Amino acid sequence: MMPLSGVPAPVEQVILTMTADPSYPVSFNFDPADPAFRVHEGGKIEVVPTKALRDREDLALLYTPGVADVSRAIAGDPSLAARYTARGNMVAVITDGTAVLGLGDIGPLAALPVMEGKAVLFKHFAGVDAVPVCLETGTVEELVETIVRLAPTYGGINLEDISAPRCFEIERQLRQRLHIPVFHDDQHGTAIVVLAALINAARVVDKDLAALHVVVQGAGAAGVAVAKIMLFAGVRDVVVCDSRGVISPSRTDLVEHKHRLAATTNPRGLSGSLAQALLDADVFVGVSGGQVAEQDIAGMAPRAIIFALANPDPEVHPLVAARHAEVIATGRSDFPNQINNVLAFPGLFRGAFDSGAPQITEPMKLAAARAIASLVAEPNALEIVPSVFDERVAPAVAAAVSALA
Amino acid sequence: MMPLSGVPAPVEQVILTMTADPSYPVSFNFDPADPAFRVHEGGKIEVVPTKALRDREDLALLYTPGVADVSRAIAGDPSLAARYTARGNMVAVITDGTAVLGLGDIGPLAALPVMEGKAVLFKHFAGVDAVPVCLETGTVEELVETIVRLAPTYGGINLEDISAPRCFEIERQLRQRLHIPVFHDDQHGTAIVVLAALINAARVVDKDLAALHVVVQGAGAAGVAVAKIMLFAGVRDVVVCDSRGVISPSRTDLVEHKHRLAATTNPRGLSGSLAQALLDADVFVGVSGGQVAEQDIAGMAPRAIIFALANPDPEVHPLVAARHAEVIATGRSDFPNQINNVLAFPGLFRGAFDSGAPQITEPMKLAAARAIASLVAEPNALEIVPSVFDERVAPAVAAAVSALA
Repeated sequence: MMPLSGVPAPVEQVILTMTADPSYPVSFNFDPADPAFRVHEGGKIEVVPTKALRDREDLALLYTPGVADVSRAIAGDPSLAARYTARGNMVAVITDGTAVLGLGDIGPLAALPVMEGKAVLFKHFAGVDAVPVCLETGTVEELVETIVRLAPTYGGINLEDISAPRCFEIERQLRQRLHIPVFHDDQHGTAIVVLAALINAARVVDKDLAALHVVVQGAGAAGVAVAKIMLFAGVRDVVVCDSRGVISPSRTDLVEHKHRLAATTNPRGLSGSLAQALLDADVFVGVSGGQVAEQDIAGMAPRAIIFALANPDPEVHPLVAARHAEVIATGRSDFPNQINNVLAFPGLFRGAFDSGAPQITEPMKLAAARAIASLVAEPNALEIVPSVFDERVAPAVAAAVSALA
Repeated sequence: MMPLSGVPAPVEQVILTMTADPSYPVSFNFDPADPAFRVHEGGKIEVVPTKALRDREDLALLYTPGVADVSRAIAGDPSLAARYTARGNMVAVITDGTAVLGLGDIGPLAALPVMEGKAVLFKHFAGVDAVPVCLETGTVEELVETIVRLAPTYGGINLEDISAPRCFEIERQLRQRLHIPVFHDDQHGTAIVVLAALINAARVVDKDLAALHVVVQGAGAAGVAVAKIMLFAGVRDVVVCDSRGVISPSRTDLVEHKHRLAATTNPRGLSGSLAQALLDADVFVGVSGGQVAEQDIAGMAPRAIIFALANPDPEVHPLVAARHAEVIATGRSDFPNQINNVLAFPGLFRGAFDSGAPQITEPMKLAAARAIASLVAEPNALEIVPSVFDERVAPAVAAAVSALA
């Protein structure tokens, strides 16, 4: 690995001196005294009135008979709902519990704490009201139909933790049938922040974004979206690998969404293993949840970039990655360069709501990524994305999205 | 009409001196300067975090990785969801917009302000979190299926403004399939408060509840539930009329739920018009939305009770009713004795949640009615129900419900 002049210190030194415990502190036993359980007592959200209810007069305005006027007006002109209900600022965080965090198909009820957490983040970072909607699993058609029936209540739909490849078809159909933003965060939230990080990482290693050789490990929700946004951003050489290696038209085992990947990626027509794809690659993006051996990344190009985003266990440990790459990012908060969707989704919906955008488009996602990247004044190996607590992020993303609406 | 000794003043005098405007102040035009529209700007509810999010440590507990422990624990033991999510205090206020207030089938979007209003009342009166869920109309089967799929998110279901007779089958199926309280407020909320009012009205006119001759005008959601709860409370003679007159087995035009009414009510086998049913009746309960002529109520028994609950226009104006009845109630806040569901539903769900009741049973509804009635220390013609702002109501209802759970 070649350290870049201007970077405060070589990555591996900093990482080696960090106190992070490589065995991520996750216990799966139920312990009421555990801080995570204690903070979850009673849940994490509540629904509160925004208007005073002091007396009969208030009651007659907020409820009957006054509310009847508002309802009739909306019946006559549906566009008034944006102004006279909470809908215009309300996102449904919808899951069927089939792919919750790294836990898999644990069902809608067990997914509820995650969706509540998301609602907390929406409100905290961007003033967006969000409610969990955890649906009993059904077919793609049943889920789509259920969400379409629900939609009048919400100004936007944030799909969450829905397994691939179902998630692609579900999002596609919903975007077609609804006239409100529909956004699968596991795809596009991840993709936006990965692109933001890549924009700055490329600056750090002094390479042109368009000329990068990128290898994406994982062809699920995140992998597909990461590949798509990179192509849209001008990266020409993106190769996606699944557990059987490079995705290319010569493969005979591809399901539909991988067929589409094969048609749009891999311009050099590679085939073979991940290790073969990684030979001379500039960028590795791991969104697979699997593990990658050190020898696989050892053949990457000089000044390589490794985003090992599996949580809690990165595809390759940062301590190992640091031996072969100059810029390293993970999904973890205890290493530098955390790729965290919270940098994207609150500001995205804030911008869509502020501008009345009927959907979140590809140019909006690209603009969001650039806005996030732009907040790091001087990118270096230890800082390619802003902190999740950087209060400039959501407004910057919202402004970028609004400008395109 | 015979005034009762002990009552402060004859009803008609008090009503005649009231300043209420018989032309109810409802305008159906859109006027942004109107107080009802102004108070609805931006809607009436928001979703806020209940736990502090100050730093990375909080984030790691409220969201990943900490939340994963909680999700896994719930996956292993679903009962933990009651403790570690907001679900245990969360009601979905669900409508399909087919029977909104007196406005009819105005659709789910236009129903949203009413559902938000309900959420305001739930929180204000009983600390219950409630979210609107406005569903695109479908068949009974589609609605039931949609709500069953949604149910993991909520601790209880409050059905609202769903047209009859669909509402009966929808509620019946949901009660069978779900293990959380399912409560159609237009039926049971109304019925509970009507019964509470009747308990005290019977005391005022010094008649035995069981011996009352009751006529219910209207065989929709409210009428059916009012008849049922009265029978359950021990009233023996309940006659229900629809727009074609008395519901009896001799009618050949009855739909299913009216067949059931015919089988359980009308013990004297009456037939004919509402006016005929009202001859010598002790109680008239109007929940029809229609109008009743003065000559129809003129034949009621001495010391009659009239609940004319249609909103905004009671079936018979209180000023007219006062010529023929001793105790009069309406659904309006500008006359004495307002029959308002808000006396029932917040405390009911509070009690169900506090006690973990898997459903709201007939004995619970009866206990709720008795609890509401008991809060009027000395019932008189002008005070048969407590004020909706009486802070003792919701706790008393909750305690009564909890005691039976």
